[in-house]
Parts: sequence; structure tokens; C-alpha cells
Amino acid sequence: MEAILPLSTAGRLPVPADKPFIPAVPRSDTAEQEEPGYPSLSPYQARPVSGSTIISHNYTPALPVLDADKLDQEELEARINKVIEDYKEKLQLRTDHHMGYPYNLDFDYGPLEGLQKYCINNLGDPFIESNYGVHSREFEIGVLQWFARLWEIELDDFWGYITNCGTEGNLHGILVGREVLPDGILYASRETHYSVFKAGRMYRMDAVKVGTLETGEVDYDELKQHLADNAARPAIINVNIGTTVKGAVDDLDRVLDILKETGYTEDRFYIHCDGALFGMMIPFVKRAPMVTFRKPIGSISVSGHKFVGSPVPCGVVMTRLRYIKGVSSDVEYLNSRDATIMGSRNGHAPIYMWYTFTRKGYEGLRKDVEKCLRNAHLLKAMLESAGVKTMLNELSSTVVFERPREEVFVRKWQLACEGDIAHVVVMPNITIRKLETFVQELVESRARVAVAEALKLAESARAANASDDE
Amino acid sequence: MEAILPLSTAGRLPVPADKPFIPAVPRSDTAEQEEPGYPSLSPYQARPVSGSTIISHNYTPALPVLDADKLDQEELEARINKVIEDYKEKLQLRTDHHMGYPYNLDFDYGPLEGLQKYCINNLGDPFIESNYGVHSREFEIGVLQWFARLWEIELDDFWGYITNCGTEGNLHGILVGREVLPDGILYASRETHYSVFKAGRMYRMDAVKVGTLETGEVDYDELKQHLADNAARPAIINVNIGTTVKGAVDDLDRVLDILKETGYTEDRFYIHCDGALFGMMIPFVKRAPMVTFRKPIGSISVSGHKFVGSPVPCGVVMTRLRYIKGVSSDVEYLNSRDATIMGSRNGHAPIYMWYTFTRKGYEGLRKDVEKCLRNAHLLKAMLESAGVKTMLNELSSTVVFERPREEVFVRKWQLACEGDIAHVVVMPNITIRKLETFVQELVESRARVAVAEALKLAESARAANASDDE
Repeated sequence: MEAILPLSTAGRLPVPADKPFIPAVPRSDTAEQEEPGYPSLSPYQARPVSGSTIISHNYTPALPVLDADKLDQEELEARINKVIEDYKEKLQLRTDHHMGYPYNLDFDYGPLEGLQKYCINNLGDPFIESNYGVHSREFEIGVLQWFARLWEIELDDFWGYITNCGTEGNLHGILVGREVLPDGILYASRETHYSVFKAGRMYRMDAVKVGTLETGEVDYDELKQHLADNAARPAIINVNIGTTVKGAVDDLDRVLDILKETGYTEDRFYIHCDGALFGMMIPFVKRAPMVTFRKPIGSISVSGHKFVGSPVPCGVVMTRLRYIKGVSSDVEYLNSRDATIMGSRNGHAPIYMWYTFTRKGYEGLRKDVEKCLRNAHLLKAMLESAGVKTMLNELSSTVVFERPREEVFVRKWQLACEGDIAHVVVMPNITIRKLETFVQELVESRARVAVAEALKLAESARAANASDDE
Repeated sequence: MEAILPLSTAGRLPVPADKPFIPAVPRSDTAEQEEPGYPSLSPYQARPVSGSTIISHNYTPALPVLDADKLDQEELEARINKVIEDYKEKLQLRTDHHMGYPYNLDFDYGPLEGLQKYCINNLGDPFIESNYGVHSREFEIGVLQWFARLWEIELDDFWGYITNCGTEGNLHGILVGREVLPDGILYASRETHYSVFKAGRMYRMDAVKVGTLETGEVDYDELKQHLADNAARPAIINVNIGTTVKGAVDDLDRVLDILKETGYTEDRFYIHCDGALFGMMIPFVKRAPMVTFRKPIGSISVSGHKFVGSPVPCGVVMTRLRYIKGVSSDVEYLNSRDATIMGSRNGHAPIYMWYTFTRKGYEGLRKDVEKCLRNAHLLKAMLESAGVKTMLNELSSTVVFERPREEVFVRKWQLACEGDIAHVVVMPNITIRKLETFVQELVESRARVAVAEALKLAESARAANASDDE
């Protein structure tokens, strides 16, 4: 297979064959331009912009609300059913061909279906019951206690809640950090999820974007330098437990060492761990550094719809109760008894998590993690054997590779792309069978591109020497 | 009935019989104390606190994640099913006896049930498609266009998205206001939903809490005075389209007049309309003042799980596209291409809304609103005929009355209480039959309290004059 597709024809990257593939994530602090060759490809994660207008309206696929007042009942029902049935087909097709985002699409919440009849709302703080009775706080607190065990914090010492997504967890963690250390500077690496800098902007914090190593980890030396330079002010540090694009894990212990070396005592820093995807996996990886509240961290957030899998986006954020107590009473924190970001909260989400954790147990999750890491290595090996340059961080199931050049292929497999790279996040629903199909189609796609380029060369030559050939 | 329960025995409020019942909402800027006589009653909306610790842990009802590793498969399934079945029963019971919160629990999304198999996520901006294919943007944009028609803004002029709840809409509206007018002062009445002041705190804005009239509307004279005093700085004003507790509607036209009178030109103010519940109803009320983008407002937010009804909390926020364009490019707004607050967004919510709007049409919603207002007046008349003091704002279906004194009654009917008052929000699922049962039980509850108090008087008298009686 290798012979069919040498990098020199099919690839876009002028990487010498003996050098490992180190993809460059575009700097997120520069304006994003339409990239030549990829005119209509969407960005993987929303990136900062400067200059030109960035919101474009896209009305083409709008499905207008039907005009009930003008249709008779039967016709209306028929049209609604048609819309829903067509949509279900599309969903199934897209679910079957999804590889790019860190979502575990393999879940079965069949026994919970009847719950959609109820408006389940965990209004406000999980630990302060409201009078609205149609809630699922019992499941929510059960799930939070499960996480407290996972992250090694006493039941009496934590506070947390089930969020709408990883972003809400990050918004919350950074906000608690700011309230604990109002004059703190926010530090995060440039490969950090954009929601962290969004938080800094929303909260009017000073923020420092720190460079990254080739792996995608924060550049520890640069972080140290910044911390030393700003030693007069407290530090609020976002530590990535798996970056969005490369799945890179910042070394928490090393960050703690740096803080010590630069003279920050524990009352002068706050660490938020963004564990969107990998925060759920790392506890089950043997050789991974421990992310635990036994270390002086302030908060952890993870997503629930990523590794766990769920019909709706959701997540968990956990922090120390004393911070919430402190900020609630002394600083009037969120100006309310409710220390969550959202007031009304989706009460179905905790039930999904409770159900999955109950069915799988720690052991089932450990097996899922193992399977993902194994299949990620398999995918890397398959791609490399087919001549596709790849990168896979040791503690990650995110396989990064050269961005495919056929738009239709990228769309079909819903690949997340950024700059020159694409990735597949190997989740429990990515089977070996699916990897086979994917690699085969990728190789075929690359062959088509290579053939087209080769023929273009011939075409140019023919045009230049019209008499030479045929 | 009136004779059974004269206010002097059953009521707590020393209101002369000829004076209308004007309930006092406790000032939210004073510390909340445990109220004598209501030791364990929870607050209706989370209120600001000062002083003592406010987060109390409530582990009693936690439903721990079962230990899958220790149970065999059959036993595990049986236990899960038992938990879910018991929980469904509880949900049904609680749904049947719900009167206090502004949630329309009467919905039937039967045909959508199969969608729970899919992880539907409208990642990022509704108008910038991401490569993740399992989304429902076509429904979302359809619903947004429906709202654009309702609120009279051209399709090319609006930007908005479907949120997780009314709070997210308020957080977004206030944030856009702050980015448009970075030095602006936030003004909102003291009966405003707490999320507005929460936003001010989160965003480090100067905020002014304006007093209210007896109806619950903002005190226009006081607002005018504050605006005049701070004329050097721009104004970001939250206008309530139905307050949380009394359903009071701030008079938008009057606020606009005040701005003109105090010399604020349109480039120096931003108005966010918080229409959580009533923003969905007001377009269908004939004599109500129009809330529309034809007036110089900046944004509107409403909830989707309130008047519309939905299994999950959700909502809509809409603003002018030029603000989003402006803040995105010039101010780097949220530091990203994604101008939503959350990154991942529940893709099921737009489908619920699309389905309801399509089935009911504007005409069906108008009928629902009429029914609610009619039944609210019926409830008021029934309560008053039974000697219970009530208040009902003209443009509202929120019936405010003296807080029942039996905790068990408040819990059963899930009444939202604040200070001396409780309310019933008459939603489409509140039938006349339900009102009958409720009023009957309320009167019986008050009778029990009255009898107990009367007997206590006799008991005291007996103790004082031991020889007198028996």
C-alpha cells in the first residue's frame, strides 16, 4: 500500500520521511483567512478573529415552522411525520459515519424513554432543594458523589453540579478562580479550548496565552517565565487534561512544581483542570498522572456527552465547598444563593449519567478506555502503513493526521480540521470494522487527489509543448 | 365560604378588608433570615445573601450509582428498572400536583421519542455550520425565523440562538449590552430575576438596583432620577416582560420616553427585555404594549420550557446582527467565532419548539394565552370568594396570594413562595377541575390552621385560669 501513495504526491506537508509528523495548530491569535484550497471548510473550533466580519448567515437549510393555521389537521400531521422521519434517517446516516468529534455515539437509554413526558428541571443549586418537585436531584447528587470518589474528595468537602456542557464547567471553574483571587491573572496555553479565553474576556480578567510544545502541552519554560514576571499578582491557571485538537495532557505535577519554584504559595494560585474528554478517561489509564483533589487544585470539569455518551450535551464541574462558601457569603459571588451559572438545569442529564455509570461500573469504563486506546494505536498503524503521516500522544485516543483534501470525504466522515491537520477521536463506538472502511476510503480519496494532480502536470506539459505528444 | 375563614384568624397579613392586597416582596438586598414559622421552607428564587454560610448539603435523597462490579447482570437490570419505575411514578404524581412554577407541563412529544437515540448537538454558532453532522440547525433556524416574525425583525438583521434557559438568554443579552457599551451602567428593578444581577457581577459591571411600584413594575420616577444622575455614562437597562413573582410588565414605551427626557440618544443605551414567561404570551394579548425590534431595543430573551412546554429547560435569545458583527470583529467579543455562551448546545430543544409551533400555530398559542388569562381571573375570583386575599396584574396569569401556612400543603402543590406571598402561575395545563381541587384543599388547610390557633388561645386561657373551666 505504501508504494501507491508516497507522501510526495498525495500529502501537502513537506515533511522529510524520517522526521515524525508534528502538526502545527494554527496560532489562534492571528486572523483566520479563508485557506486556499479549502474554501468552504468550516473551522473545527471557533477561533478568535480580528478584522473582517465573521458571522455569515446560512439560511439554506432552514426548516420553517409550518403554517398550522393554513393546513387541515390530517395534512399537518402527515407533513410533520414526513419531516421527522426524513430527519431520523439523516441522523442515523450521520451517526454511522461520524469519526471527528470526541462524542461516544454508542449509547442505549431505551429504558429511560418514557421520561421525555416530564419537564425535569433541577432548578438552581443541587444542594438547596427548590419547591419544584419534578426534578432529579437524587440522581444528580448520586452522580456527583461518584465523581467525588473518582477525584478523591470527601463528600463534605466538595461542591459541584451537572452542567450543560464542558464550556459551562470551564466558565464556572474560571469564575470561582476569579472570585477567590479577584486580582488573579488567567494563564492558559494557546491550544486550550476557546471557552477558557472566552471566560477571561467575559469576566474582564487579564489573560496570558502561553505557547505550546510540539505535543500540544503547555510550554513549561514559558509558563514559568510568565509566572516569574507576574509574581506580584495571583495566578489562575487552566491545566488541560487532553487538548481539543491533539489530546495533549498538561503535566499537573510539573505545573505545581513551577508554582512552588516561582514562589506562589497555595493561597496565591487557583488551578482549573479542563478535562472535557480525557478527564473521564485518565483515571482509568494506568501510567497517567493522577488528577485528584489531593493535589492543590481548585476545580475540574468534564463533559458527559463525550466519553460517557448522551443524547444531550452535558458535563460535570466540581470544586471545593469552601470556595463556594467563601465566595457566596463574603463576595456575594453570583449575587444569589444559586452558585450555578444556569438557573434552570436539564434534569434528564444526571439520569443518563447515573444510568451509564450504574450499568458499566468503573470496570466497564476501564474496558472502554482500553479499547479506545488500543483502537487508536491500530488506526495510527493502519494509516502509517498506508503512507499517511500521523501523530498520537501517548495518553490520548486522538489520532492526528494530514488533512484530507477532498471536501466531500471530510464532510462524509465529519472530520474536525484545523489548519493542515485533521483528527479522529477514537471513542467506544469506533469499531475495527469502521476503521477498516474509513482507512480504505481515505486511501482511495488520496489516490484520486494524487491522480488528478499527476494528470494536471501532464496537462500543463502538453499545453507547453503542444506538438510533443499524441 | 367567606364566613368560615375570615382573614383575622387565618391570615397573617394585617390588611384592612377594603384595601387591595398588595404583597410585599422582601427586599433582596437584605440578608435573608430563617423566617419564624417557616423553618424549612425553601426560597422561591435564589436570593442574594450576606453573612452566614448559605450552601447546605442535602445528601438525604441521594441515589448512589449502583455498584455494577458487585452485582450480576440480571440483578443489576432488575434494580435499575425498579429505580426508574419508582421514579416515573413520583414524576407523574408531582406533575399532577404542580401549580407554582411557570412551566406548561401539558405537552406531548410522542412522535419525537425515537430522537433520544441520537447525540444531537448544535455546536457553536447557529449560522456557522460545524462539521459535526448530527445537529438540528435546520430546525433551530426555522424557529429563530418564527421568532423574528413575532418580534418584527428582518431575517437579515437578526442574530440569535436557542439557549439552555432564560438565564442564558439574560446572560447573553447583558453581555452584548456590555460589549456594545463597555462603560455602561446596568439598571434593573429589584423584582428582576436574579440572573440579571448575577450577570452584572460576573461581567464586573456597575449595577443599580431600582425600586419597584406596588404592582411589581420598575419605579419609573426612581429610574429617571438614576439615569439623570449618571447621565455621563451609557445605560444598559433590563426591562421585565413579566417579573418572576408578580408577573409585572415594565412599560417599555415609558422607559424609552424617560431615556429621551434624560438626554440618552440611541447610541448611548441598550435595552434587554427579559421575557422569560410572559415574553411568549404578550404578543397574543390584545391590549398589551408591543415588544418589538421596531423599537430601539437590543435583545429579547424568553424561555421555551415555560409557556411553550418542553422536557428540558430551553429558551431563545435574539439580538441585532449588527451588534454581534460589531462585537465579534472589533471587540473580539467572546474571543471566538462562536458568539453563544455555551459551545455545545442541546439539539433536541429546537425540535421541541419547532414541533409545538408547527402543531399549534400562532392561532393555537393565542387560544392558550386566552385560556390562561381567563383561568387566572377565575382562580382569583374563587380565592377571594373564599376569603383569601389575592393580587393579579392586568397582563398576567400569575395569581399572587397570602402564603399558606401548612408546609405540607405548600410542598404538595409545589408553590413558589417568597416572604409572605405565594403564587400560582396559570399555565395551559391548569384546568378548571384542577383549580377546584386546589382551592378546596387550600381552604381546608387554612381552616385547620385557624382551628389550631383558636384552640391554642383557649389552651392559654385555661392554663392562666386553671380553675375556671372543666
